[in-house]
Amino acid sequence: MSVTISDLTKKSILGYSSCLSATDSVARIVSGVMKPSEIISECIAHIEEYEMKVGAWSFIDKYRAINEASELDKIKPEGPLFGIPFGVKDNIDTHDMPTAHGTSIYEGSQPSRDAACVAGLRFSHALPLGKTVCTEFAHRAPGKTGNPWNLDYTPGGSSSGSAAAVASGMVPIAIGTQTTGSVIRPAAYCGVIGYKPTYGDFNTSGVLANTPSFDTLGFFSKEIEDMVLIRRALLDDSIPALLNDSLKNVKIGIAVEPYWDNACDLNMSMIEQVESLLIRAGAQVLKFDGTEAFKNLEQIGTNISGYEFARTLSHERRCFYDQLSPILRDGRMADGFKINYSQYALSIQEMERLRIKLDDAMSRVDFVICPSAPSTASLGLHETGSASFNMAWTWLHTPVVTLPIAFDTKTELPLGLQMVGKRHQDDKLLTHASAVLKYLFK
Amino acid sequence: MSVTISDLTKKSILGYSSCLSATDSVARIVSGVMKPSEIISECIAHIEEYEMKVGAWSFIDKYRAINEASELDKIKPEGPLFGIPFGVKDNIDTHDMPTAHGTSIYEGSQPSRDAACVAGLRFSHALPLGKTVCTEFAHRAPGKTGNPWNLDYTPGGSSSGSAAAVASGMVPIAIGTQTTGSVIRPAAYCGVIGYKPTYGDFNTSGVLANTPSFDTLGFFSKEIEDMVLIRRALLDDSIPALLNDSLKNVKIGIAVEPYWDNACDLNMSMIEQVESLLIRAGAQVLKFDGTEAFKNLEQIGTNISGYEFARTLSHERRCFYDQLSPILRDGRMADGFKINYSQYALSIQEMERLRIKLDDAMSRVDFVICPSAPSTASLGLHETGSASFNMAWTWLHTPVVTLPIAFDTKTELPLGLQMVGKRHQDDKLLTHASAVLKYLFK
Repeated sequence: MSVTISDLTKKSILGYSSCLSATDSVARIVSGVMKPSEIISECIAHIEEYEMKVGAWSFIDKYRAINEASELDKIKPEGPLFGIPFGVKDNIDTHDMPTAHGTSIYEGSQPSRDAACVAGLRFSHALPLGKTVCTEFAHRAPGKTGNPWNLDYTPGGSSSGSAAAVASGMVPIAIGTQTTGSVIRPAAYCGVIGYKPTYGDFNTSGVLANTPSFDTLGFFSKEIEDMVLIRRALLDDSIPALLNDSLKNVKIGIAVEPYWDNACDLNMSMIEQVESLLIRAGAQVLKFDGTEAFKNLEQIGTNISGYEFARTLSHERRCFYDQLSPILRDGRMADGFKINYSQYALSIQEMERLRIKLDDAMSRVDFVICPSAPSTASLGLHETGSASFNMAWTWLHTPVVTLPIAFDTKTELPLGLQMVGKRHQDDKLLTHASAVLKYLFK
Repeated sequence: MSVTISDLTKKSILGYSSCLSATDSVARIVSGVMKPSEIISECIAHIEEYEMKVGAWSFIDKYRAINEASELDKIKPEGPLFGIPFGVKDNIDTHDMPTAHGTSIYEGSQPSRDAACVAGLRFSHALPLGKTVCTEFAHRAPGKTGNPWNLDYTPGGSSSGSAAAVASGMVPIAIGTQTTGSVIRPAAYCGVIGYKPTYGDFNTSGVLANTPSFDTLGFFSKEIEDMVLIRRALLDDSIPALLNDSLKNVKIGIAVEPYWDNACDLNMSMIEQVESLLIRAGAQVLKFDGTEAFKNLEQIGTNISGYEFARTLSHERRCFYDQLSPILRDGRMADGFKINYSQYALSIQEMERLRIKLDDAMSRVDFVICPSAPSTASLGLHETGSASFNMAWTWLHTPVVTLPIAFDTKTELPLGLQMVGKRHQDDKLLTHASAVLKYLFK
């Protein structure tokens, strides 16, 4: 058993050709070296080559994308994502492609409008190539997607297709959603960068809710700078470029109890190796004490997610109960009927207090690190793995990034380093993530 | 100029026949005195008689409702709203009726699922009669609805049709939404009870967002007990009945600065009369000091609503910009492009601090009162009136009720008394509202 620190975005897997990152593509389009139609053709070629085995997509509309790209060929590049192909998780509405929420109940169902995030990326002339596979209602029943690193292993979920599409070079960027660990876990399992923003920053209009108090969008890429372009497109163009910061005297907390000490030996070894590299880079590494913020967190959070999820899916519960998977019906939905309104309302207030306690704990560090998942992806496509390492950060509303920086030398499956920032300081977190990547690999 | 304190739910207006309240209807159905089909027939008769002049509905599906009611006739009553007809604001999705969001852009558009609130009411065997008129995207451009008290006057907005339908006896209850004053204002203008819950309590899945940080559902009725039934149907059956409380030693704060001292003389006079009646009932009435919670509130809130609203409607901005009204484009949407992301993120944090300051100020009273709107409804259907008296409470996430307790003796238009409770204490607020109504009129 051993783990090797390695820049997985540069590692070729199973013979997949990588596509250009969004940042590189935009640079080539702006400088006139490549045209949008050439960028999209490369992605489509990869889809045609790998999709049969990976199964990342629930719907692909290559002809529309090709037509739109050739229209862009004719005009002057403008907007942060001009000509960039992207994937859209299938719980996010698109006015010109069906949205099935990962269930046969809504197969072929056509929304009347684009979700705000899809329209926002289109505004900056990015081109959606299709809809990516989502677990059933973004809960746990998996779709058809395999892990591009080893197709017998889970890609994670619920944003399974978005992670796998980016990992196998079919698109440079993809949109996902996270309620517990639905972006960070699949990104870690698939060896790509995943970013879950501060709760509330990105508009979720047109995204099917799961647990509204926790739901956020999230994004996948192979280059950290791509996240800046996405933020510019969806937030506004005032988002700063990543600074070329050093890690000297940066305070880094290592999260341990009560969740992260369940990590497998490989993950423990990854954290130890990262720790000594960060210390060598001049960072101050200390144990992160979040005890106060994590008190009863799991119970409180399960009360909230159960109560809200069961109500979000009231229509499906009423009209399609028999078509819901047992894991959904007997899992989070059943949880929701074990607590009553006053327990829910108390949990909401208690969670808000925990958030303030985490803000307080976070004030003693610049960012926190821990593994992105308890282990590498597990064998089999029947389940999507554990979100236990992501839950606290999602529920407490902090921004999180996972970096694909290590792999198991035996299985050759990826491991992710989870970096957690302070609420509303996503730009700083992304800058630190860039610095960590640079220090580890350059 | 004079104002008369009067129970407007008992006052017949313009010759409309009132329909039974939800509470009364359920009692009659459960005791076998009436059948669901008789309840719905009465509502349909009122719609056929009044709708031509009031214009409360954008879509009516009476045959489906009649069929569903006759199915209910055959079974044993169960659920808090068995056989109760209701109206659904047209920015709320229904799987079997179109949802147009108050704009010709989405005329006839058919969602694939029911919003959580619609499915939740249907679960308790309530029957949606149709979709009620909504201003354009729940912003300010009005629909066709007139104020049932005087059809030349605005019913208020954005939940115009829901308020007017309940006011004119077409349905006992209706669903609306509020982002600033879209439930409380039309309820006050139309002389019915309006209830805007604590932010977050009611699931908004399937409701078109406006400003996600402020959006809540809201409800209209003519009897305060009806709100308990709605809460049982949508939250859970643990919601308590209203206690028969007295107002003895209850601490009531009167909100004055910086918003409510702009009230018209009629409203001032209403508050004075209510104050002396409440004192006579044994309540302690004091001036409510919310200064700290209202500091820069308007600027902070406008930053948030502008930023979020402009992004919620990204698809419409991209594809239908010319079909948006000038008041929407040049109003809240334009506001949204005047601030950048960091100003927005600061405003979100500042608003959260103001909420905690309001919690603190509210801890010194049991509830707060003020007028529900600066004046009675204004003449003309070209605008929907000012939400300035509702803004603070909505943005600060407190529960609010408006009671139809007074009218202008000259114009015979209603005035509403706004009651504000503490966050997550809606049951207590509704109990106090019931006590206020009982003391004023019984």
